[in-house]
Amino acid sequence: MKDPSNPVCRTISTLLSRIGDKWTVLVVQTLSEGPRRFNELRREIPSVSQRMLTLTLRNLERDGLVNRTVTPTIPPRVDYELTELGHSLQKPICGLATWVMDNVGAIHEAQARFDAEQDKREAA
Amino acid sequence: MKDPSNPVCRTISTLLSRIGDKWTVLVVQTLSEGPRRFNELRREIPSVSQRMLTLTLRNLERDGLVNRTVTPTIPPRVDYELTELGHSLQKPICGLATWVMDNVGAIHEAQARFDAEQDKREAA
Repeated sequence: MKDPSNPVCRTISTLLSRIGDKWTVLVVQTLSEGPRRFNELRREIPSVSQRMLTLTLRNLERDGLVNRTVTPTIPPRVDYELTELGHSLQKPICGLATWVMDNVGAIHEAQARFDAEQDKREAA
Repeated sequence: MKDPSNPVCRTISTLLSRIGDKWTVLVVQTLSEGPRRFNELRREIPSVSQRMLTLTLRNLERDGLVNRTVTPTIPPRVDYELTELGHSLQKPICGLATWVMDNVGAIHEAQARFDAEQDKREAA
């Protein structure tokens, strides 16, 4: 884990960064409520761009966390849903999200203190 | 949580991305073993650049997760250690890291399958 020059450690670091990514977290959380079409995801996560949503879903599909099902209607219908592996990611992601939500107040206070001290130092 | 145009959601998204960042995870894990000096951290996380380590530590300090203590010797000695808040982050980060380590095999297999199918599609 500590030496990312080792290939396994590199994979773990890469995965951690990607899984901790905010779009991944938001997409996994939304899909945990049930399958969604692309445009439904865009509506439910209004700040995500089409490009970032496409990229996030493609990475999740490649990692085996999301299934993409194409129904050959006109126009084709594309549904995304969490795989079993994707569902198992819910618990640790939720743990991290809960920690952040529980501590966002303390973090804001720390940031305000830090910034005030920086300002004082710069004014000195 | 779902709408990052809301300021609280934006903070949470930003924090999640930063805390899920691989350098943050590696620094928090290393400091969970005890206080470290800057150069000790560099030695224990050989792939981190001086710039990224400085930036990661500064963000952690600003968020109130790490204490930075300067001892005015010549040259000055700078120690970093987790605050109580920083220690409380260990559990959720560990949960995520454990999930990744437990599932790295399944993810590799999924990636290999995905890439093989892409190659087939491109060759067709």
